[in-house]
Amino acid sequence: MSTSSIEATSEFDRDTAVTLRAPGVYDAELSAGWTIIQAVNGGYLLALLGRALGDHLPHPDPFTISAHYLTPSVPGPAVIRTETVRTGRTLSTGQASLFQYAEDGTEVERIRVLASYGHLDTLPDDVRTTATPPAMAPVDQCFGASDGPTPQIPGSSAITERLDIRLDPACVGWAVGAPSGKGEMRAWFGLADARDPDPLSLLLTVDALPPTSFELGLKGWTPTVELTTHVRCRPAPGPLRVSITTRNLAGGFLEEDAEVWDSADRLVAQSRQLARAPRG
Amino acid sequence: MSTSSIEATSEFDRDTAVTLRAPGVYDAELSAGWTIIQAVNGGYLLALLGRALGDHLPHPDPFTISAHYLTPSVPGPAVIRTETVRTGRTLSTGQASLFQYAEDGTEVERIRVLASYGHLDTLPDDVRTTATPPAMAPVDQCFGASDGPTPQIPGSSAITERLDIRLDPACVGWAVGAPSGKGEMRAWFGLADARDPDPLSLLLTVDALPPTSFELGLKGWTPTVELTTHVRCRPAPGPLRVSITTRNLAGGFLEEDAEVWDSADRLVAQSRQLARAPRG
Repeated sequence: MSTSSIEATSEFDRDTAVTLRAPGVYDAELSAGWTIIQAVNGGYLLALLGRALGDHLPHPDPFTISAHYLTPSVPGPAVIRTETVRTGRTLSTGQASLFQYAEDGTEVERIRVLASYGHLDTLPDDVRTTATPPAMAPVDQCFGASDGPTPQIPGSSAITERLDIRLDPACVGWAVGAPSGKGEMRAWFGLADARDPDPLSLLLTVDALPPTSFELGLKGWTPTVELTTHVRCRPAPGPLRVSITTRNLAGGFLEEDAEVWDSADRLVAQSRQLARAPRG
Repeated sequence: MSTSSIEATSEFDRDTAVTLRAPGVYDAELSAGWTIIQAVNGGYLLALLGRALGDHLPHPDPFTISAHYLTPSVPGPAVIRTETVRTGRTLSTGQASLFQYAEDGTEVERIRVLASYGHLDTLPDDVRTTATPPAMAPVDQCFGASDGPTPQIPGSSAITERLDIRLDPACVGWAVGAPSGKGEMRAWFGLADARDPDPLSLLLTVDALPPTSFELGLKGWTPTVELTTHVRCRPAPGPLRVSITTRNLAGGFLEEDAEVWDSADRLVAQSRQLARAPRG
């Protein structure tokens, strides 16, 4: 579907809308509403690319999507170019790149993704999992952007107004100058306008929490080099639980492993990213 | 470097050699020596692509490489087409595809990868890790391909002759009809001709053990959809320890998380793949 058929009743759907310009080519507008300090959030960008690919490919849902971040995106116009790599019965593979424009009008590539898409609703119901939901305090004991101590990312971050993130008390030490030293971040997650989660919004969810490096006592920017997300199940309506873990900070890089659980206690997404560690 | 400068003194280097045909285009020969049953091993293919990209890009070492597997590869000629996506000071990003030939001579794409390369040797030595090496029995208590009970993959698998894999006793139940039920596989890993590990051979290592599904009591093929590997450190000479874990088998798919540790007790590679679960 192209923009015309998307009911842009939520902030997320409005700001990730794409408009078909030519076969496989989509226009988009990167909203200033999803920035962290001045950069556009990587998960929001991934959702935009994911929406374009879901329109272009014969299958609708991202099963696995690998993104390599090339240059920082800024609010404003963008174009997404998609390519069908292979179509199969149960999975299709596609590629997409998001470009913005330099002052002289030339295109500058921001992100490139490779992804395999399928139909989540046709999967069998079998589940054999040893994974368990993250240990999380009840939501009324967790800390949102309007609570004190204020767990806000330094600088103006418009994205905090779009999200309803409630951090587990065990993971907010960084906000009061007492980081736990553990590479863990856990939160209840929703969209501020209460739009329910779906496979596309999960692509935002995996990269929306404060970085684990804050709890490791490191301040500053943790730019993503590469982020791969597996969507394992269509999420049930209601709040999500997200845990992010860093086990290995070495050589100036760290990995962040995210798990997203839905209100029906199902593991709906897993992701891993490689990011540059902050200097500080 | 192209083939002429590779000292093909090991089976791995000989069979992953690539020959520059034109700018960014490399000829390769997929060896029948790296097959599992009849398919060419996915990690071996990744190492071939990784070698071509390391030749084409200005940085030599794969930091993160994401591969989407499209069609099964077979022994015989192949061509790898590489593209520089972006070059930066510390990282370069590239793309590569491996093609083989249909009967009518047309190219059929087997795998496509996106990767970011850097210089492992220029990274700082800082390590802040909470990861610990896998619990592993001493190598003389582990089981190799020539030991009884014989932990061999059903069917003829030439790759077992190229590898020196010693499975931890806790993970060999499947070979005698008594799988543990746990999604875990752990082994000591080396190349049969004792070639020492390097960043390229790590790309083979992450996909070389029997699948975790065997210990879950599932027989049959576990084809990889997507495999992303982070190389975190240049491995020291000597044997590697590999652990592979599956936590979530659901909807006909499973993830496999691999960790590779070197003889100096450093976490040298992390990978995650999404694979189709066997039916059986």
